[in-house]
Amino acid sequence: MTLILALDFGGTKLAAGIAHLGSREWLRYERRLSPASADAKTDLEIMRSLIYSLLEGVTPSVIGVSFGGPVDATTGTVRLSHHVAGWENIPLKDLLEAEFGVPASVDNDANVAALGEYRFGAGQGCHSLFYITVSTGVGGGWILNGKPWRGMSGMAGEIGHMVVDPNGPVCLCGKRGCVERLASGPYMAQNVREILENEQQRHREASVLRGFPRQSAQVGKPAHAAASPLKQLARRRGGEVLRALVGDNLQLLTGQLVSQAAADGDDVAKEVLYQAAWALGLGIGNVANLMNPQRFVLGGGVTKAGEIFWQGLRKVARETALPEVTFEIVPAALGDEAPLWGAVALAESLFTMK
Amino acid sequence: MTLILALDFGGTKLAAGIAHLGSREWLRYERRLSPASADAKTDLEIMRSLIYSLLEGVTPSVIGVSFGGPVDATTGTVRLSHHVAGWENIPLKDLLEAEFGVPASVDNDANVAALGEYRFGAGQGCHSLFYITVSTGVGGGWILNGKPWRGMSGMAGEIGHMVVDPNGPVCLCGKRGCVERLASGPYMAQNVREILENEQQRHREASVLRGFPRQSAQVGKPAHAAASPLKQLARRRGGEVLRALVGDNLQLLTGQLVSQAAADGDDVAKEVLYQAAWALGLGIGNVANLMNPQRFVLGGGVTKAGEIFWQGLRKVARETALPEVTFEIVPAALGDEAPLWGAVALAESLFTMK
Repeated sequence: MTLILALDFGGTKLAAGIAHLGSREWLRYERRLSPASADAKTDLEIMRSLIYSLLEGVTPSVIGVSFGGPVDATTGTVRLSHHVAGWENIPLKDLLEAEFGVPASVDNDANVAALGEYRFGAGQGCHSLFYITVSTGVGGGWILNGKPWRGMSGMAGEIGHMVVDPNGPVCLCGKRGCVERLASGPYMAQNVREILENEQQRHREASVLRGFPRQSAQVGKPAHAAASPLKQLARRRGGEVLRALVGDNLQLLTGQLVSQAAADGDDVAKEVLYQAAWALGLGIGNVANLMNPQRFVLGGGVTKAGEIFWQGLRKVARETALPEVTFEIVPAALGDEAPLWGAVALAESLFTMK
Repeated sequence: MTLILALDFGGTKLAAGIAHLGSREWLRYERRLSPASADAKTDLEIMRSLIYSLLEGVTPSVIGVSFGGPVDATTGTVRLSHHVAGWENIPLKDLLEAEFGVPASVDNDANVAALGEYRFGAGQGCHSLFYITVSTGVGGGWILNGKPWRGMSGMAGEIGHMVVDPNGPVCLCGKRGCVERLASGPYMAQNVREILENEQQRHREASVLRGFPRQSAQVGKPAHAAASPLKQLARRRGGEVLRALVGDNLQLLTGQLVSQAAADGDDVAKEVLYQAAWALGLGIGNVANLMNPQRFVLGGGVTKAGEIFWQGLRKVARETALPEVTFEIVPAALGDEAPLWGAVALAESLFTMK
C-alpha cells in the first residue's frame, strides 16, 4: 500500500495526516496547538511525535509539507517563520528525508493551499487559479497550467502587499494602503478601534468646549489627509453594536467581531468591512487584468464575513477588471485543511515524478 | 531553405519580413504607413502586396503574426482593433493559411513583443519576464517558463488598467488612476495641458480681481479633490519650456515633448513625467509582489524619456516590492522591431511543433 504523509506547520498549530495514494480521506489524522513559547526545535519535536503516533511502525512512500512562512521550494529549506523563532534556514526537506528515508517536498502554506484547492477543492479542473487567504495576514498562491507558479525567488503570490490606496493608512511593511493593511482581520479591528477612539476624543473635547464653535479635527493636517476613508468615517454614527460586543473594551475587538457587528447593522463595522472588501476587490480586479486567471478561490477567517463582504468585493473586482476579462470568485472548499490536503497533492506529484 | 514570414499589423503601420530559420537578420524587410482612412480590408490588401513583394515567388514554411489589438491566439482570430475599423472577428490565421498553404500563428502585439525580447532581445535566457510597452497606450505580455502566458481568455498582461491611484483622474476605461491614465504619452500631454490651462485661467481671474484677496481654486470642491497631484501642480511654476516648444499652442503637446521639456528643466513637465514614472513604478512593484518575475523589459516611446523617468520608476518599484522580492528592470533591446522579431519566434515555435 502506498502511503502519503502530509504535514502542516501552521504557526499556531501543527497537523499531520496519512492517506493512501488517490484517497480523499485521512487514514489517520492528528493536530496540536503549538505552545505559546514554541520555537523551531519544539515544533519539530511535537511534529515528530505526531508522525510516529500516526505511522504506527509503517513507512510512508513520500512526504508533503506545508510551512507557514517563506520557503525555498527548490531545496525545501525554510527561510524563516514570522510566528515562531528559530526557523531561519532550517533544511526541513533534508531533515525529513534523512529521518524517514523517503522523498519529501516542502512549500509555503499559500502555495500548498492553492494546490490543495486545485486538486481536491474549489479549483478542480481549473485552467488557472489564484488562491487568496484573508486572515491575520493576506497571502496568495498561484496554479498556472496545473502547476504552482512560485516566481524567480519563490515569492510570487504576495497580493497582501499590493498597494491599492497610496493615500491609505501605513502598513507594517512601511507602505501605505496595502491590501493587507485594509483587509486583514487584525487591521480591520484596528481601523474600527481608531474610529471609535477618535469619536470618544471628540466627545470629550466637545463637552470641554461647551458653547464654543466646534473645533475641526482636520486643522493643521495636510489637505490630502482628508481623503482617507477612515478619517471620514470618524465623523459618522455607529459603533454601538461593536461596543456592546466587547463590553466597551476596544482592545478586545477582532476582525471576526467586526464582521459580526456589520451583520448586526453597526454602521462603523459595515464601513470598515466594506473598505476591506473594496481593497480586496480592487486587488482581485488588478490581478484579473494582469494574469487573467479563470478562478479566484478565497479562504481564511475574514472570508466568512458574510454577504456585505462578498457582494462588495465581487462588485469592485468586476468594475476594476476590463469588460473582456472574465473570471469567477468562489469561496475555498477545504477550509483549515487546505494546506494539509495541498501537502498530499505536493507529495503525490513527487511520487508520480519518481 | 526554411523560410519564416513575419507580419506586424501595427495599427498605424504595417511591416513584413522574411528570414531563414535560426537567422537573426532579415533576408528582406518592408514597411508601410497605414493610410488614415484604413480599414481591415485595405490593411489586408497592403499587407498582401508587401508579402508578395518580399516572397518573390518562393513559399515560406511558416507564418508568424503580431496584431495590434485583442486576438484569440488559440484560433488566430482577431477580436477587434482599437485603431482600425472592420477587424471584428476576422479569422486572420485561417485567411493566411488558406492563401499560402502553410501553418500560421497569430497573437497580440504585447505578447508577441514579449516573445521577441525573450528570444532575441533584452530577455534572453530569462526564467520569466514581463514586457511592458509604454506608448499611446500601456500594455504588457508575459513569458513564464519560456512560453507566453495569455490567461484564460487571452487577456493577460493588461497592466495599463491596473488602478494605482483610486483618487486619480478618470481613464478612458471609466476607472480612476489606471497606470495608462498616468503614464501613456497622450495622457501625459493632456495632464500638462490641463495644468497650464488652469494656470492661464487663474492668471485671468487674478488680473480681473486685481487688489482683491486671491480666490482659492479649491473653493466648493470636495475635500478629497485636493489629494490629486495634478491639482497640486497647478499651483506651481514652470511650463515656460513647454510653451516655447509648441509656440503657445497647447494642442500640439505630445508625450515626447513633455519628456523633452522635463529634460530641459521645465518643472511642470518634470512633475508630470515623474507622476508617470511613479504610476509605472508602483504598477511594476505590485506585479513583482504578485508574480515575482526575474525581469521587466520596458519598451515604447515614453521609455525614451531619460533619467528622470527611469530613476523615478526604479525607485518606486523597489520601494513597492517587498525586500525579499528581487527583479531587474531593463529597457527593451529590439525597439520598434520587437513585434516583428516576436512574430519570427512565434513562427519558429510553430515550426518546431510540426
